Amino acid sequence: MSPAEALDTADRRPRVVVVGGGFAGLAAIKALRKAPVRILLIDRRNYHLFQPLLYQVATAMLPPSDIAVPIRGALRKQRNATVVMAEVTGVDPERRRVLAAVPDRDEAALPYDYLILATGVDQSYFGHDEFAPFAPGLKSIEDAQSIRSKLLRAYETAETEEDPTKHRDLLTMVLVGAGPTGVELAGAIAQMGRAMLSSDFRRLDPRQSRVILLDNGPRILATFNEELSRKAHDRLASMGVEIRTGAHVDKVDDKGVVVGGQLIESRTVLWTAGVKPSPAGHWLATETDRAGRVLVQPDLSVKGRPEVFVVGDTASLLHNGRPLPGVAQVALQQGRYVGELIRERVAGRPPRPPFSYFDKGNLAVIGRNFAILESGKLKLAGFPAWLAWATIHLAYLPQGENRGEVMLRWAWNYVTGEQGSRLILRPHSPSPAAKPAS
Amino acid sequence: MSPAEALDTADRRPRVVVVGGGFAGLAAIKALRKAPVRILLIDRRNYHLFQPLLYQVATAMLPPSDIAVPIRGALRKQRNATVVMAEVTGVDPERRRVLAAVPDRDEAALPYDYLILATGVDQSYFGHDEFAPFAPGLKSIEDAQSIRSKLLRAYETAETEEDPTKHRDLLTMVLVGAGPTGVELAGAIAQMGRAMLSSDFRRLDPRQSRVILLDNGPRILATFNEELSRKAHDRLASMGVEIRTGAHVDKVDDKGVVVGGQLIESRTVLWTAGVKPSPAGHWLATETDRAGRVLVQPDLSVKGRPEVFVVGDTASLLHNGRPLPGVAQVALQQGRYVGELIRERVAGRPPRPPFSYFDKGNLAVIGRNFAILESGKLKLAGFPAWLAWATIHLAYLPQGENRGEVMLRWAWNYVTGEQGSRLILRPHSPSPAAKPAS
Repeated sequence: MSPAEALDTADRRPRVVVVGGGFAGLAAIKALRKAPVRILLIDRRNYHLFQPLLYQVATAMLPPSDIAVPIRGALRKQRNATVVMAEVTGVDPERRRVLAAVPDRDEAALPYDYLILATGVDQSYFGHDEFAPFAPGLKSIEDAQSIRSKLLRAYETAETEEDPTKHRDLLTMVLVGAGPTGVELAGAIAQMGRAMLSSDFRRLDPRQSRVILLDNGPRILATFNEELSRKAHDRLASMGVEIRTGAHVDKVDDKGVVVGGQLIESRTVLWTAGVKPSPAGHWLATETDRAGRVLVQPDLSVKGRPEVFVVGDTASLLHNGRPLPGVAQVALQQGRYVGELIRERVAGRPPRPPFSYFDKGNLAVIGRNFAILESGKLKLAGFPAWLAWATIHLAYLPQGENRGEVMLRWAWNYVTGEQGSRLILRPHSPSPAAKPAS
Repeated sequence: MSPAEALDTADRRPRVVVVGGGFAGLAAIKALRKAPVRILLIDRRNYHLFQPLLYQVATAMLPPSDIAVPIRGALRKQRNATVVMAEVTGVDPERRRVLAAVPDRDEAALPYDYLILATGVDQSYFGHDEFAPFAPGLKSIEDAQSIRSKLLRAYETAETEEDPTKHRDLLTMVLVGAGPTGVELAGAIAQMGRAMLSSDFRRLDPRQSRVILLDNGPRILATFNEELSRKAHDRLASMGVEIRTGAHVDKVDDKGVVVGGQLIESRTVLWTAGVKPSPAGHWLATETDRAGRVLVQPDLSVKGRPEVFVVGDTASLLHNGRPLPGVAQVALQQGRYVGELIRERVAGRPPRPPFSYFDKGNLAVIGRNFAILESGKLKLAGFPAWLAWATIHLAYLPQGENRGEVMLRWAWNYVTGEQGSRLILRPHSPSPAAKPAS
C-alpha cells in the first residue's frame, strides 16, 4: 500500500499522521500548513461532516451535501498533506506505526514521527445494543437519512391507517436523551410535523402528532445554567413537545419504549442519549477515564509518548476541575494547539505552555427563531440567541459554497416553512433485477 | 385502508386513480385541476424524480434533492387530489379496482371510475440479471448514489494501490449502452475524472483514467440524425472517452466486461443499455408489443376498456409509422392529453381527436458546454445546443426552489469545476452497535 510510498524515504521531513478528518483533525492540519512536515490524513470517510447541523438533515431541512465537505477539496491547496480513505485498526506505538485496512488489501503499517488521533465518538446504548435496531442514533449522514426516512414514512403510513391505535402509534415520536441533540431534534420534528401535516396531508391532523422527549436526569440540557434550561423547556412545551425528566428507559423494541415499567407505544424511537469514545485508548494501551476517553497530558500528548497526541471528543482533560465537554469548540482548539505545538517543535523552538480552553460559550437551538446561549455571565434566550447561533454556525461551515447555500436554504425555509429535502430513500442493495414499477 | 375512505361514498364525483407520479402522471393530474373529480395518486415513492438529470447526481454535480420534488408538496394546492404512498400489485379491470400493498397492511382494493397507469420503465439486463450486481443501472436516486459511491471509491482505492494492473482496473470505467443516458454519463465521468484527479489526488494522473463506452449498434445515439451522432462521437473522443460500437457484451462479472470474447478488466461497470416496461400490460391482461409495453388505442385507452388509460414509457403507440420514444416530452403530452380527455368526458362534451405527438426535438448533452439538438430540420451541435439544453431542463424542473438552486449550482460548477456532492455513502443497515471510529 502506497501511502507509505507517498511518504517516501528520500524525503527527510517529519511524518505527521492524523487519524480523523473532523473538527480536531482538520484544525491540526491547517495549523501545520506552512510547516516543513509531510502530513497523512487517514479517514474512513471521504468527507468532513459538520455534525452540529446533522439534525437538520434528519428533519429534511438541509440535504446531506450542505453539511458535508469533501476532505480532498478542503485540503486541495495544502500541498504538504495527503489524504487516504482507510479504516484505522490499531497503533503500534513502539515501532511508531498506524495500522490501517483498505478493502481488498492487506493491512498496512504506516510510519509516523508524530501521531494525532482525532477519532471522535460513536453512539452508545449503554450496554443495551439490542435497542439499536429500534432506535437509530444521529451520528452520521446515513443515520440522518435513515431517521428522515423513518419519520416521513411514519406520516405516509399514518395517512392511510384506519386503526386508531396504530394511527396514534405512528404519529408518536419518542426521543431518548435531552442533551443538545435530543432537544434540537425534538424541536425540529415538532415544527416539521406541524407544518407538513397541515399543508401536505389530507387526513392527518397536526394535533394528533406527538413528540415525547425523555431524559433520566432531573432537567433537559443539563450542561446549561438552570434558568436557560427552564426557558428551553418552556419553549419546547409551547411547541407541543412532551418532556419527561427522571425517566429511565428499561427497554426499546418494535412496540415502543418502556419507561419506569410503563410502555409508550411508538413506531419511531430515536436515540439521542449517549456517546462512547473511539478505541484510541485501547489502541495505545494507555490510561483512560471511566467512559474510555484517553487521559491526556496538559499538552494533549499521551503519557510517556510525547510524539502521540489525542484531541477532540476522544480525549479527556480537566478544565477548572471538570472534564472538557465533547463539543466542536474544544475539538477545534485542541487540534489547532497540537498542530502549532508540532510546528514549533519541528522548528526547534521551546515548548509551548499547556493547552488552555477558551470557552466561547454554549448554544442550543429550539425550533425556528429560538435558541439559548450561555457564555460566561452572558445568558440569552430567544431570537437574539438564535441569530447568534445562525451566525456562528454559518461562520464555521468549512467552505464558501456550502455557507452560501445553507444561508439561502435557511432563508427559503424561513419564508416558506418548506422542508425541501424530503426524500424517503431505501437502503440500497446492489441493484437487483429491477422490480416492477408501481 | 382508507384511501378508499378518502374517496368516500357520499361524494358523487367520479374517482380518477393515477398510478405513478412521474412526468405523465403529474401532467394528467394537473390537467384535471379544475375538474369535478376525486383524484387518488398512488406512488411507491414520496417524490417526483426529474430523471433527465439523474446522471448529474451520479457524477456528484447535483445533490439528490435538487432533482426530486416531494409529490405532496407539488400537489399541495390541488385540493381534488389525494396522495398515497403504496406499491401497486395489480388491477382488477372487471370490478374496476386497483390493488395496492402498504407495509404491515392487507392488500387494499381501491375503486376507480377512470384509471391512468403511468408506471414507467425499469432497468433491463435483457435476460442477464446475473450482470446486475456488477453493473448498476441508473433509474433511481438510490442507483445514482450507488454509482457515485462506486466511482469515487474507485478513485480513492486507486490512490493507494501499488499493483499496476489493479491500479489500471480501478481507473477503467466501462459503460454498456450508448443511448442518451450512456453518452451523458460517459461525458460527465470523463469530465469529473479529469477535474478531480488533477486537483484533489496527489498520486493519480488524469491520463491514467479511462472511460470506455460500449454499444452493440453501429453508432452512438442511434435515435439522432447520423451527422449529429458523429459530432457527439467526436466530442466524446476529444474528451478521452473510448467508444466501441458493434460491441456485444457476453458477460459482466467482478473482473470486468467480456466483449466479443475479449475481457476488458474494470472494477466499475455501469449499465446504461436497456429498459423494460412496468407490468401494466400484465395487470390488465391486454395486448402488448414485443418489449411488453401496452398497445394503446389512438386516445391512449386500453382496448375494450375506455375508462383505462396507459401513458408514458409503458405505453406503445405508433407515430408516423414508428413507435414513440420513451422520453419525457411524450410522457408529458400523453399525461396532459388523458387528463383533458377525462375532464371533457366528465363534462359531457364530445370526444377529443386522437392523441397526436408534437415533437419538440431531441437533445443530448456531452460534458460541459456541448450538446446536440435535433428538432425537425434544425440540427445544432456545440454550445448553442448546450444553452438550449440548459434552458429547457431548467424550465421543466417542477418547482421554483429547485430551479433556482440547480441554476446556481450549475453556475458554480461552471466557474469552479467543483463537484460539490461528493459523498461516499454506505448502504445503511439499521444502525448496529456503533463500530469503532477510524
